[in-house]
Amino acid sequence: MESEVLDDLQNGYYIYQPGRGFKFGMDAVLLSDFAACKARNAIDLCTGTGIIPILLAAKTDIAHIDAVEIQHEMADMAKRSVEYNGLGNRINIIEGDLKEAPSLLGKGRYDIVTVNPPYMKAGGGIVSDGDMRAVSRHEIMCTLEDVIRVSSELLVPHGKLFVVHRPSRLTDLFFEMRKASVEPKLMRPVHPCVGKEMNLVLVCGIKNARPELKMLPPLYVYNEDGSYTKEIDDIYGR
Amino acid sequence: MESEVLDDLQNGYYIYQPGRGFKFGMDAVLLSDFAACKARNAIDLCTGTGIIPILLAAKTDIAHIDAVEIQHEMADMAKRSVEYNGLGNRINIIEGDLKEAPSLLGKGRYDIVTVNPPYMKAGGGIVSDGDMRAVSRHEIMCTLEDVIRVSSELLVPHGKLFVVHRPSRLTDLFFEMRKASVEPKLMRPVHPCVGKEMNLVLVCGIKNARPELKMLPPLYVYNEDGSYTKEIDDIYGR
Repeated sequence: MESEVLDDLQNGYYIYQPGRGFKFGMDAVLLSDFAACKARNAIDLCTGTGIIPILLAAKTDIAHIDAVEIQHEMADMAKRSVEYNGLGNRINIIEGDLKEAPSLLGKGRYDIVTVNPPYMKAGGGIVSDGDMRAVSRHEIMCTLEDVIRVSSELLVPHGKLFVVHRPSRLTDLFFEMRKASVEPKLMRPVHPCVGKEMNLVLVCGIKNARPELKMLPPLYVYNEDGSYTKEIDDIYGR
Repeated sequence: MESEVLDDLQNGYYIYQPGRGFKFGMDAVLLSDFAACKARNAIDLCTGTGIIPILLAAKTDIAHIDAVEIQHEMADMAKRSVEYNGLGNRINIIEGDLKEAPSLLGKGRYDIVTVNPPYMKAGGGIVSDGDMRAVSRHEIMCTLEDVIRVSSELLVPHGKLFVVHRPSRLTDLFFEMRKASVEPKLMRPVHPCVGKEMNLVLVCGIKNARPELKMLPPLYVYNEDGSYTKEIDDIYGR
């Protein structure tokens, strides 16, 4: 067991995280903000330490958020963070395999699915699958195809899937979404700064929607002087 | 027959175009520049007045460029432009249906395919199919699926497809490319200016390549003061 820390999210909430290894990043913060909308319920897949359900609970009135994590240590931290924050009445952490979520939790019952999936394909041969960081970053326990298929099964008709991913996987993402009848409807490219190529994409798909992607303006992270842009400060609530 | 003009391309070449209606736009200029690389031969689909083969001939040493156009008036202007520019030994304009190109011209024989396809889906009911402009802009005579499937058939193994399209069709484009085994490998987003959403995408796919998209830096068209950026001036050769 790696060492653990309790970090202040600066929004009234706290999170248990591994001291080293997989700490949540800006991608989780951006995804929570992108996904913040009116809904009766939501489910977060690959939830890790539960950062997305906690941020989503802070930003919205969503009454119930389920969150699935396969790794015991991560799920355990997530459960304790939910308890620590007094969010037990809104967030339910489920330790298990997301591929079993539709049969376990029910198909067609979530207004929103959020997911910050492992970005890297498995099979690179550079990871051992006992490593928490590796499971969070590489497609060891699930592929993007699994994640999108399961998301589609969990969504109500016209429910929304919110994903963050690397641009290098954009074809995979769009291909799997269309294959699973979750049509990409909104895309927000995230650029480190003006002039640099996007290094993250936020995508919202709607189940059974007609094809047509709306491209949103770029989100820039840093100003020229290296400080955060106003939009990033606003998202972080600073 | 609409009135016709002979426009100076400012690179030593000229082009016959309809006086009103479908004149070539910046998308054709950007695509020609994006596609300019070493190759033995190339084919341009939906060539219209032949702007792309003429610009590509000016920018590269490609010895032979075929170009297919289904509309008689357009193909006729393209043929006369090729003749006027003395490019008859390098560019061959073919009046016909691109769907017949693989059987007519041969499968697996082009290093490069370029295409600036009709951007809009047919079926909107706002166009009559006798209109030249409508055929160039709406999927009346061919769909994106046709264009990509035919491109794939025409390409040599590891040959390159260069496409320009609207971001609203990005899912369609990526989905059809992967379906036809032309994997999207490079994408260049084109933005009117810093901070505005991209309004064009340049995509290069490679036949039978492994999945992984490389995202290029944004191409901005206008500076803040409304003048063209240096990169646009360079592409136009100004």
